[in-house]
Amino acid sequence: MPKDDATPLISAFDPRSDLSGALRDWRALLGDVHVLADEQVRDHYARSTSSSSRRPAAILKPGTRDEVVKVVRIARRCRTPLYPISTGQNWGYGDACAVYDGQVIVDLGRMNRIEHVDTELGYAVIEPGVTQGQLSRYLAEQGVPFWIDCTGAGPNSSFIGNIVERGFGHSPYGNRFETISGMEVVLGTGEVLRTGFGHYPGAKTTHLYPYGIGPYLDGIFTQSNFGIVTQLGLWLQPIPESFCPYIVLFKEDQDLLEAIPRLQKLRLNRILQSVPHIGNDLRALASDAPFPRDRLPAQARLTPEVRAALRKEAGIGAWSMSGAFYGTSRQVALHKKLLKHALANVDAKVIFLPRHLLAAGQWFVRRFGHLAPFRGLEKKIRLGSALAGMHSGVPTGAFLRGCYWRHQAGVPADFSDDSDLARERIGLMWMAPIIPFRREDLALLNQEMDALFARFGFDCHVTVNMINGRALAAVYTIDFDAEDEAETRRGVECYEAGVRSLFELGYPLYRSSVRGMGLLASQRDDGFCDVVDRLKLALDPGAILAPGRYDWLRSHRAIQSSQNEDSGN
Amino acid sequence: MPKDDATPLISAFDPRSDLSGALRDWRALLGDVHVLADEQVRDHYARSTSSSSRRPAAILKPGTRDEVVKVVRIARRCRTPLYPISTGQNWGYGDACAVYDGQVIVDLGRMNRIEHVDTELGYAVIEPGVTQGQLSRYLAEQGVPFWIDCTGAGPNSSFIGNIVERGFGHSPYGNRFETISGMEVVLGTGEVLRTGFGHYPGAKTTHLYPYGIGPYLDGIFTQSNFGIVTQLGLWLQPIPESFCPYIVLFKEDQDLLEAIPRLQKLRLNRILQSVPHIGNDLRALASDAPFPRDRLPAQARLTPEVRAALRKEAGIGAWSMSGAFYGTSRQVALHKKLLKHALANVDAKVIFLPRHLLAAGQWFVRRFGHLAPFRGLEKKIRLGSALAGMHSGVPTGAFLRGCYWRHQAGVPADFSDDSDLARERIGLMWMAPIIPFRREDLALLNQEMDALFARFGFDCHVTVNMINGRALAAVYTIDFDAEDEAETRRGVECYEAGVRSLFELGYPLYRSSVRGMGLLASQRDDGFCDVVDRLKLALDPGAILAPGRYDWLRSHRAIQSSQNEDSGN
Repeated sequence: MPKDDATPLISAFDPRSDLSGALRDWRALLGDVHVLADEQVRDHYARSTSSSSRRPAAILKPGTRDEVVKVVRIARRCRTPLYPISTGQNWGYGDACAVYDGQVIVDLGRMNRIEHVDTELGYAVIEPGVTQGQLSRYLAEQGVPFWIDCTGAGPNSSFIGNIVERGFGHSPYGNRFETISGMEVVLGTGEVLRTGFGHYPGAKTTHLYPYGIGPYLDGIFTQSNFGIVTQLGLWLQPIPESFCPYIVLFKEDQDLLEAIPRLQKLRLNRILQSVPHIGNDLRALASDAPFPRDRLPAQARLTPEVRAALRKEAGIGAWSMSGAFYGTSRQVALHKKLLKHALANVDAKVIFLPRHLLAAGQWFVRRFGHLAPFRGLEKKIRLGSALAGMHSGVPTGAFLRGCYWRHQAGVPADFSDDSDLARERIGLMWMAPIIPFRREDLALLNQEMDALFARFGFDCHVTVNMINGRALAAVYTIDFDAEDEAETRRGVECYEAGVRSLFELGYPLYRSSVRGMGLLASQRDDGFCDVVDRLKLALDPGAILAPGRYDWLRSHRAIQSSQNEDSGN
Repeated sequence: MPKDDATPLISAFDPRSDLSGALRDWRALLGDVHVLADEQVRDHYARSTSSSSRRPAAILKPGTRDEVVKVVRIARRCRTPLYPISTGQNWGYGDACAVYDGQVIVDLGRMNRIEHVDTELGYAVIEPGVTQGQLSRYLAEQGVPFWIDCTGAGPNSSFIGNIVERGFGHSPYGNRFETISGMEVVLGTGEVLRTGFGHYPGAKTTHLYPYGIGPYLDGIFTQSNFGIVTQLGLWLQPIPESFCPYIVLFKEDQDLLEAIPRLQKLRLNRILQSVPHIGNDLRALASDAPFPRDRLPAQARLTPEVRAALRKEAGIGAWSMSGAFYGTSRQVALHKKLLKHALANVDAKVIFLPRHLLAAGQWFVRRFGHLAPFRGLEKKIRLGSALAGMHSGVPTGAFLRGCYWRHQAGVPADFSDDSDLARERIGLMWMAPIIPFRREDLALLNQEMDALFARFGFDCHVTVNMINGRALAAVYTIDFDAEDEAETRRGVECYEAGVRSLFELGYPLYRSSVRGMGLLASQRDDGFCDVVDRLKLALDPGAILAPGRYDWLRSHRAIQSSQNEDSGN
């Protein structure tokens, strides 16, 4: 496993940390089988797509909230930092890795209970190990008239893991933070906190109204290291009478830019109710085939000529957008018209993918797809079906195929929804700034980022997501060959320069990778860090939980300097 | 001013508090004219609709954020607790009053700058003194194509004051907490915190995406005493192509209950996009005329016979609901149909109030309204116009008329939007539980609450608001005669019994009055209070800000016991 030299690795350990004592107590608590410290397992958890491999000291697998409480108490007593993960599929952002080497991973994957599903008001109460695929299957099997929101991270990724990173999906419930109600959190003290109305015994509204009474706390347990979320209420979206996915193809950059103010109005007016995603040509090309090493050996960036040729061969334009309409048949029909109408003067092709069309396509491809003239069609139908599934509560790994762009062997023949990108040695780093939902900002940033990627010799893969009616969540992806040390180093340099540039341009990230945590505080001190620091110490006075995670390295330092006074209890 | 004896008044003062020193420093800072300590002004601020009058030690009127910072620093040094208010119109919940006597009110009314309005992406950056009426007028005058969300509290009430209480309005932006982005907060240390992306210099997305990166903090500055919010970004709703308010009349309780699951589906599916309000007959009667003291002297509750008679005279049913549709003309037409269709099998009358109908009515009433046969029509048109205004960004005080139900003199002839309910000696206490959006819960709770109100001899005024697709925010109002000491005492008893009962039934409040703060922790200790306590001490270590406000009296006590160590700085 190539060692990451770019970021200084600070050991999170207190010199008086008693790892072996902790391991003994954890083994007594969880049983040997759930306390793993052998080389092979530690290597497995250290795997990373984003070249920020961190090797854990051990892995713990508690099975219940009460075990988490006891794990935390032991850690605090023995001063051994913990790093909780849900299913460890934080692809491109750090995977299952802690921020520092030598932390003890708390793998919550065994806690995968769907505690309760309310089939009338539409919510599920779930644990961190519950995956997209699991809940999707459960709802279908039980005939519950609700869908989950899906991200593109695949069926094996955790809801809670994604939500505490404030990830977003594609459906009308895509702004996931707004679809949760009632958290259960184990603090660094071992206390169990129930947010919203959840701390009132017998409250009937914990999962129906998130704020409760008194300070609304949920936000501080996202993108922080204040606690381990062991349960939450997740709202589900009602299955609509009618549903229609769509794709919009834009020929040139200019066409997308012209459409942006129109799309913004549609999104603001909730005609686009879901979170449409727009990808550039490279995203589409990458999902199809890897970088053409034959045509451009010893390079990691397409020349304009090759890029144009590939685009032409694939029959795609500069940008494609995908989303879906939901509602009664008449609502969907109306919204389809409004979208078409809004884009009437733009060079854009709007394609609707209603269920019957996809079904017919699937039937046709099953019968005739093996014939040479229909091979291209098969791909399109497969993509359309994956898209339709993702927008209607059926998660897919299909959109991870694009991550193989710089992989030597390309997408493996046996690629499946269960593929583990980190184990496959994929190289992937995402920079995800929020930008104003305005043509000028998008044009400027795309230009700046492409120039930056060119400087480091990478293709600039871009997705732009309409996270709300006023802002876009853009994702600029560095695809690199993780087997190539020089390219990996260049990727890291590109990432760090990119993140700095985004902050300087006034477009801070909405989310950070493990690698990026140290770059968040590179700004002039503004007081925010101090406040976060004090909140951390109020909730985790031993700084046991996930040192370095969104804490700007500060609480960690504070603890180091005060460790002589604090006796831990 | 009748003294409140029901709740023990705990002095918030540290014995070493130096009020006179603080007043001297505040006068030097703000000028004499903005530091008020005379009897008359203190009496004015002590006025209360909810029989929980608290007399402040002084009133400070800072004009800028920097002055707020200095005011807080002086308070901390001199150990004089502050209680911030925006415009002091927290009707029925405590008005301009602190939780305890003897606090120093920080009246932020002078800070009424509309700092910025983005006419493209639709948001305003405002200070605490900015009122609904002020921003509404500003947008209209400047021709900004956006509306504000309105509450029924009247044009002079503050946005920020309402938002930090997590109040809600009527429009699609009625869940106000979800329409704010980027706070500026002065902490109890005098630090200025900018939330979301606001702490990054030059960030262009502070008011477009609320969460920023790292822990999302905004929630902890609502319903808390952790800081003074001095500015925030407020999203505005785009003026739709078409707009149509509606009223739905339900004849009997049973008819509303039958409609509830249908309305829930419409709300969940965002066909009802705004926050519809449903009021019982008493709410409608009260807005028209006060309690019929002539028919029922020496009583505060209608007999079933008189209630039935009044209902008949007014031509109203048991419940009426109001809301509005927004969108393109075709969307509005479609949604109107869907509402009618959903209620087809229920005994409910759906009345749409499109602009042209109201305009025609207004014209007619201007010409013929003075004629006896049309007097009833005038009232209806006035009500319809107020309703349409409130749903389209024009706030009104019209819905405060109902607060005069137990007032000896009834609604004064000169009642206006500027009427000050507290000065008018209105008696008003609101209990606002969240309940599941389900027929059974609403039926049960209405029954329980009516029985409780009957026990104390009060009419049970009810509003039920569709705060989201899964929960209702119900408001049970005690209207009492504030001039009648016995009735006031009974009102307080009814309130306290009601709040206890709501918690016991599993329907905790979404918001508390100043009087109710002491009842929030009456439950078995559940750890939540400890956490809130520690957060408080992290952000306001001197416990200078609003002692007692949503802090379950704990941080205050903690400070009292630790005051010997803490030297304040």
